[in-house]
Amino acid sequence: MSRPAGRALLRRSRRALDVGGGGPAPDRLLGSAVVTTVAVVGGGQLARMMAPAATALGVGLRVLVEAPTTSAAQVVTDAPVGTPQDEARVLALVAGPPAADVLTFEHEHIPAATIAAVERAGVPVRPGPGALLHAQDKLAMRRRLSDLGVPCPRWAPVEDEAALTAFLADVGGVAVVKTVRGGYDGKGVRVVRDAGDVAEWFAAARTGGPALLAEEKVPFTRELAVLLARRPSGEVRVWPVVETVQRDGVCAEVVAPAPGLEPGLEQAAVDAALAVAEGLDVTGVLAVEMFEVAPGSGEAHGRVLVNELAMRPHNSGHWTIDGAVTSQFEQHLRAVLDLPLGETSPRARWSVMANVLGSTLERLTDALPAVLAADPAAKVHLYGKEVRPGRKLGHVTVSGDDLADVRARAVAAAALLRGEGLPTL
Amino acid sequence: MSRPAGRALLRRSRRALDVGGGGPAPDRLLGSAVVTTVAVVGGGQLARMMAPAATALGVGLRVLVEAPTTSAAQVVTDAPVGTPQDEARVLALVAGPPAADVLTFEHEHIPAATIAAVERAGVPVRPGPGALLHAQDKLAMRRRLSDLGVPCPRWAPVEDEAALTAFLADVGGVAVVKTVRGGYDGKGVRVVRDAGDVAEWFAAARTGGPALLAEEKVPFTRELAVLLARRPSGEVRVWPVVETVQRDGVCAEVVAPAPGLEPGLEQAAVDAALAVAEGLDVTGVLAVEMFEVAPGSGEAHGRVLVNELAMRPHNSGHWTIDGAVTSQFEQHLRAVLDLPLGETSPRARWSVMANVLGSTLERLTDALPAVLAADPAAKVHLYGKEVRPGRKLGHVTVSGDDLADVRARAVAAAALLRGEGLPTL
Repeated sequence: MSRPAGRALLRRSRRALDVGGGGPAPDRLLGSAVVTTVAVVGGGQLARMMAPAATALGVGLRVLVEAPTTSAAQVVTDAPVGTPQDEARVLALVAGPPAADVLTFEHEHIPAATIAAVERAGVPVRPGPGALLHAQDKLAMRRRLSDLGVPCPRWAPVEDEAALTAFLADVGGVAVVKTVRGGYDGKGVRVVRDAGDVAEWFAAARTGGPALLAEEKVPFTRELAVLLARRPSGEVRVWPVVETVQRDGVCAEVVAPAPGLEPGLEQAAVDAALAVAEGLDVTGVLAVEMFEVAPGSGEAHGRVLVNELAMRPHNSGHWTIDGAVTSQFEQHLRAVLDLPLGETSPRARWSVMANVLGSTLERLTDALPAVLAADPAAKVHLYGKEVRPGRKLGHVTVSGDDLADVRARAVAAAALLRGEGLPTL
Repeated sequence: MSRPAGRALLRRSRRALDVGGGGPAPDRLLGSAVVTTVAVVGGGQLARMMAPAATALGVGLRVLVEAPTTSAAQVVTDAPVGTPQDEARVLALVAGPPAADVLTFEHEHIPAATIAAVERAGVPVRPGPGALLHAQDKLAMRRRLSDLGVPCPRWAPVEDEAALTAFLADVGGVAVVKTVRGGYDGKGVRVVRDAGDVAEWFAAARTGGPALLAEEKVPFTRELAVLLARRPSGEVRVWPVVETVQRDGVCAEVVAPAPGLEPGLEQAAVDAALAVAEGLDVTGVLAVEMFEVAPGSGEAHGRVLVNELAMRPHNSGHWTIDGAVTSQFEQHLRAVLDLPLGETSPRARWSVMANVLGSTLERLTDALPAVLAADPAAKVHLYGKEVRPGRKLGHVTVSGDDLADVRARAVAAAALLRGEGLPTL
């Protein structure tokens, strides 16, 4: 279908870009057969988990890392240090040599000016800035999704306390207030019953901090996520809809597929995600987090309301590494390179991913003997990060035919990695 | 079972070894949470494919590579250049910092003196030299396997032409002559009907070249391989027995599990491999290549005769990356670190791996658009190697319920990567 596009991309000439800085010249790659390079901004576990996929495809990875010891820097040979705010460093990242075929991200915190500079240098940025804006700015996202007819919670920009008070009255006295930019993993999100609950956010907004958005507090029955990938030529592939379990605003478990999902609701969830992907012209992996709401009287099934978007591999898709024919990390590389997408069907009836959030252990590898002995089929993924309370340090995926068993095993393995239940030495 | 052993290993103090050279000091790893390190000799695709497994387990990999552009060097951050003959380089490899927990290999061409020096430095070598000898020296292997009662073809050391002539008379006029050391992928193996067919090998042997071994030419019906892993504590796990298809002495395809394998013969194959693993005290992955021979009159099933051994991840196990719960690369790391072994059950009814041996393409990545479009479920693994005739450049694994379909698809994908059937641009 779009083979010529992908082929042309792969054959793109290895010109040196006319940018300052020069960038790293990885001697070890000169003369090798690696000629296709994906540049990535951000050196955390998401970039780290792209590395095995790049290795399999024979594609080079060049990652801009925050420090030489980050999660991704440990396993990516070409990992210069810098920040996305440093335009010269990002230009050097894509310049190479060899020049990158595309620039992508493992987080959304990229200045628009940086993206524009890379595009001026002739390197495609995927997802593009027009799409990425909607993963960076929650108000822009709500406006656009509402325009597209994608179901959302009731929402309003709240410029001051009076606007929030009025919104609270409209939605029954309780709302979720979010900073429009900069939030993640529950940060920048607060449940409020009074405008005074976010007084300091309003103060910050008046002095240059992020604006605020209020949303109704949805009485959801559970949370779902739809993960898909879309390439520039338009091909889209969707993984099975999953159930996500959040604790304190952070993903704790993912069950794939979402148990007992009514087919009509599943279709509504997929339709909403497709509308986002196509309406916003997303390229790469897109995660759409949703609330499932119980059916009203006379309704055949419940509804979904879109909560958040992420335009990159996402925690709700980590199960795909072991549980799906194509992992989200491989698919993201294929999508941003405009290569044909991979099959998204599951490899097992059920897969459950459990996050390791913090640990009492000094090093997670100390728990490997116990974890691997307890469950020879558990797939353990450690991120090489120093332990801090609540930090995402790794995850475990277990697959099988019996959901209760699979779920209990994934949770037990993650608990051992958090240091719970290990024998003292 | 042996949890204390693994735990003790992982907690082994990070002492600096008292060896010269100092070795590479990878700044990027200092201060990180990576504290367990596996050192590997050899920078080809087998070491390359250990990297994703090490990434997932949070284990560091330090690979001694032949050049800064080798297959493994492209994807391993800590990849000093050197040869296994250079004892100082190998000592520096295990010295770090940080010190390696264990030294292992991706090929058998390691001098005994190098291994002894590493053991004297206090770093375990796995497989150990007493086991590895039998993967290095085919005559030592035949002697030991015969002592252990493991079924082998008839064999004899042949010191000169007269000995070979006598052996030929014994076995019906045709034999397979092998150099005792240094052979691989069909090199150092020749079918002979006359002692003069290997005259130059005898001449070489008389001037310091490898000695020669003669074996009967087994009238096999097909070739099988048993892959297992064994850890120092004795735990062993065996993958399903596979059928291997060789062309010109090189593995071309692997079918997992071996179709229509009679249960009694399967048991005999596994028993033979277990006898090798335990009799030789192998640690790490062991591949035992075998001939299947048709049953004689009155026999319930055929027999297996052991052909070759490899004590490392092996081409006959590449299907496990995508087709089994635990890949041979992850298992090898677990085994040499004395960590509990992973489940070896298949993820699908059938998996077929097809090697990409040579290509008419300049770069294999040029075929990615066509290969990925033709088969969205094909798992493509490219090794980043420059194209040379007949060279192992990559492989493709396809899994599914219909063997004929799975096999045809794997073969077709490998053909596209060899440059066959691609549209000209």
